[in-house]
Amino acid sequence: MSQHIVVIGGVALGPKAACRFKRLEPGSTVTMIDQSSLISYGGCGIPYYVSGDVSELRELSTTSFHMVRDPEFFEDVKGVRVRTQTRATRIDRENKQVHVLDVVSGETSIIDYDKLVIATGATPRRLNLPGEELAGVNYVCNPDDAARIREGISKGEVGKAVIIGAGFIGLEMAEAFADMWGVEASVVEITDQIMPRLVSPTLATMAQRHMEENGVEFYFGEAVKAIEGEDGRVTRVVTDKRTLEADAVIIAAGVVPVSDLAREAGLEVMERGGIVVDEYLRTSDPDIYSGGDCAIVKHLITDQPFFLPLGSMANRQGRIIGTNLAGGEARFDGVVGSFVVKLFETSLAGTGLSLETALASGFDAIRVLLIQLDRAHFYPTKELMTLEMIVEKGTRRVLGVQGFGSSGDAMVGRINAVAALIKDKPTVDDISNLEMAYAPPFSSAMDILNSLANLADNVLRGINRGVGPDGFKELWDNREEGACFFLDCRESADAGEFVARNPGQWNNIPQGQLGQRIDEVPRDRPVILVCNTGARSYEAQIILDAHGFKDVTNVQGGMAAIKKYGIDL
Amino acid sequence: MSQHIVVIGGVALGPKAACRFKRLEPGSTVTMIDQSSLISYGGCGIPYYVSGDVSELRELSTTSFHMVRDPEFFEDVKGVRVRTQTRATRIDRENKQVHVLDVVSGETSIIDYDKLVIATGATPRRLNLPGEELAGVNYVCNPDDAARIREGISKGEVGKAVIIGAGFIGLEMAEAFADMWGVEASVVEITDQIMPRLVSPTLATMAQRHMEENGVEFYFGEAVKAIEGEDGRVTRVVTDKRTLEADAVIIAAGVVPVSDLAREAGLEVMERGGIVVDEYLRTSDPDIYSGGDCAIVKHLITDQPFFLPLGSMANRQGRIIGTNLAGGEARFDGVVGSFVVKLFETSLAGTGLSLETALASGFDAIRVLLIQLDRAHFYPTKELMTLEMIVEKGTRRVLGVQGFGSSGDAMVGRINAVAALIKDKPTVDDISNLEMAYAPPFSSAMDILNSLANLADNVLRGINRGVGPDGFKELWDNREEGACFFLDCRESADAGEFVARNPGQWNNIPQGQLGQRIDEVPRDRPVILVCNTGARSYEAQIILDAHGFKDVTNVQGGMAAIKKYGIDL
Repeated sequence: MSQHIVVIGGVALGPKAACRFKRLEPGSTVTMIDQSSLISYGGCGIPYYVSGDVSELRELSTTSFHMVRDPEFFEDVKGVRVRTQTRATRIDRENKQVHVLDVVSGETSIIDYDKLVIATGATPRRLNLPGEELAGVNYVCNPDDAARIREGISKGEVGKAVIIGAGFIGLEMAEAFADMWGVEASVVEITDQIMPRLVSPTLATMAQRHMEENGVEFYFGEAVKAIEGEDGRVTRVVTDKRTLEADAVIIAAGVVPVSDLAREAGLEVMERGGIVVDEYLRTSDPDIYSGGDCAIVKHLITDQPFFLPLGSMANRQGRIIGTNLAGGEARFDGVVGSFVVKLFETSLAGTGLSLETALASGFDAIRVLLIQLDRAHFYPTKELMTLEMIVEKGTRRVLGVQGFGSSGDAMVGRINAVAALIKDKPTVDDISNLEMAYAPPFSSAMDILNSLANLADNVLRGINRGVGPDGFKELWDNREEGACFFLDCRESADAGEFVARNPGQWNNIPQGQLGQRIDEVPRDRPVILVCNTGARSYEAQIILDAHGFKDVTNVQGGMAAIKKYGIDL
Repeated sequence: MSQHIVVIGGVALGPKAACRFKRLEPGSTVTMIDQSSLISYGGCGIPYYVSGDVSELRELSTTSFHMVRDPEFFEDVKGVRVRTQTRATRIDRENKQVHVLDVVSGETSIIDYDKLVIATGATPRRLNLPGEELAGVNYVCNPDDAARIREGISKGEVGKAVIIGAGFIGLEMAEAFADMWGVEASVVEITDQIMPRLVSPTLATMAQRHMEENGVEFYFGEAVKAIEGEDGRVTRVVTDKRTLEADAVIIAAGVVPVSDLAREAGLEVMERGGIVVDEYLRTSDPDIYSGGDCAIVKHLITDQPFFLPLGSMANRQGRIIGTNLAGGEARFDGVVGSFVVKLFETSLAGTGLSLETALASGFDAIRVLLIQLDRAHFYPTKELMTLEMIVEKGTRRVLGVQGFGSSGDAMVGRINAVAALIKDKPTVDDISNLEMAYAPPFSSAMDILNSLANLADNVLRGINRGVGPDGFKELWDNREEGACFFLDCRESADAGEFVARNPGQWNNIPQGQLGQRIDEVPRDRPVILVCNTGARSYEAQIILDAHGFKDVTNVQGGMAAIKKYGIDL
């Protein structure tokens, strides 16, 4: 039985669903409409176009082999009819019709459907700031905006850029400005860290510092009150604390699902927006499917509704919808929230829950931090990687892993290994034994991911009791009170300079000598143990425990973490 | 209760088990013995020392922070007693004693144990060839051999090297000779491909070609009969087909577990060698543990005994033994056979079963091949990656994934994501929806791993029916018989040169025009469809199917695979 499928939205999920369906039912017809003239573009590539990594905007709209994915391409190559500059204004579910408006001619018409796909995507969260309309102020949302931004930069009109929001897009745009064009980029963020809720303050601080070293400035805990300009062009951003000069402003305060059309049609929509779909990606009307940035899916760890607006989700979900339109029963059970963002020479990535989201979801969880080399210590291209694991006490269940590492694929490779497993409720022991492929150019014999789980095991057993660099900073900042005994367990050649710089505060007993020199350690003060990365200080903690010391704290990540966190000793 | 633990073997598993145990039971004692004078070295680093990537041999025996892991280190830092140059000659299980021989003085003594760990490792498989004793012939097994080899190279004594065996070590050594020192390296392999049983002939051929382009020569299906020399030094290797000149010979024909001591003690040992252990890594004597290269574990996909001699396994298993020696119940359920090897600018990796091992294990399985970019097509550092998936028909269970890609972490990252999941019997659909973290610098919106599963889904559905480049080669080699109609579905700009070079044999209809030009395709001959990577030719196959064509074959991987496979068109 030949069907007519109508797809509203032609950027990511729409084309994927349309093409998949056509391959399964070549005899049926598909009409895809989009209110814009440009369809099927890689919106995620926009920051890389702005930076110049991608030289031509059209590369975002081509296939891997340079065919432009325009309406003609969809008609000829994919057999999908396309109507651009055509806005869906109403869904009449009773008569199975979509009312559309030609945005150029103003003509209206009606399209019948057997099944409908709503792929209306997301739109930037509007801040409605005074001055948003000034030239040079952009919400990064579509290729037209991107072209305008890059044109401004390349003409030399932009010396100072202010980015509002320190999430994915905000950080990518800050890098684009600072790295490729030498623009002075500042980021204003209303919370007190980058990537709030996604990564810990510790990882956020490490990444922030790296960006600062590359010239980006940050203003946290500040709200933008207004954007000001002269002669119609932006010149300043006014926050509740200061005024920043700006030739360009990017507003990147997140995105919100576009679901009004669905709501007006009586489909189930979340109160804050987002179309509700089941595991087959059907809306509350079984003849209407939805997915991608306009839909809300289930988080597989919290079992709560979750909004994950990523091109990768749109593509996977689009294929599932295509299959199901053709009578299939493909499932999309939900998401685990994997993410990665490249920041200059580093990357920040994660999957599952952060400690903050785990606690908010009712888990009794802890976080551990590990710094280790990402491959064999003797292999030339090794680099330090920082990983954190979020673990539920009692069950030993791994709820999430986040990390900060170099910009290659090593970081995201670890995250993806955990992501593959995490919805199946792995325990710490499952990750301890995770069988990462091993050769010295790629991994240590005990990979950092295995070591991370081993650390969590030791913390859960109570034999490794510690703080991260944030906790160390608090202790160290209060050192004048003299409460704590800071003990550097490294060899004296490594520890010496710190002892010299902090007389009476920084003490050194190499861990191998600790047993013999145990009397040098005071028993009436908390002992804070530090080594290079936290491994030898853990051994020292065991020795002190065996000698009856009662208040011993190991600094997880050691001097490596302290340094990346930006503490001067 | 204080225990005395004896560990036989001090390279990888032994030290790990000893140190883990000591951390859990600081009040107990551990004696670790080894017949060599060198302990705790990274044997996996030897090829990188030979190549010069690792400059000093001692780097293989140091910690990440440059402490030498010698007996004093273990005594002082780890609290583990070490007796080197001490060989265990007999295990007296009844009296719980190990009889040992001081290999320097010849003295014998007896060490009592409460629990024992056998960590005797593996030894190179001996070929017992005539001439093995000649100077310049080495089994790569220990740092002494490695030092001798590198000394010979650096003195300019080695112009031509012959490596016997095309497994991990053989290939790594071939690269070491050819890449860093410009030595003419030849590999003689008795089977007909590199990495037999681990990867398909297709992937093996792609990797072999890359090594050939880097100057390594291969002789497959040849058995070495003798090694010949002059004045006590090697000069030639004689195979059953030819004689190769050689200033150095490396015998790398695999390794065998060292389990005689265990067998003589009456422990359960596999007929072909290898100590049998349970999931707690206990031998058939509950007071004796074993693991690492001398033990046999369970393969979690075939449920059969499996030998996986990797430093990574030894480290994970060592920790588990350490935990269990201290009364824990840590489990090592088995392995999935993950591996990776770097070959010049590329890597070859896999997890689970290859098609050959799947069929041999009784699975009714198929293999599919995909070539795709490893990140967004518009991102500058993208590279093509080739992945194969082994799938059980009927259940749609994924049994293995192998791949060939660039030498960075992108390839191994994909393998590790599958490795994490594969023992839990994932289906094709689980991999289709695998939530790889997405950003353009790291992944396509539809990651190659998702696409690989999508391809398998289409093949299982019967809508993508094809061959890989090996199958194409067979068809193309027989083209003079004129049976097949080869149809290039790419744009004419891409296909033109091939049409011109193969008049009457190579035909071109761009896939977008196929519907209109369907009469140009003969209905009485098999049609072989080719495009860039197999995606458009799959679309063409759907069009031909819809027009009633009965014998249509899609070349999976397309021209990209054909080129990497080395077929000249």
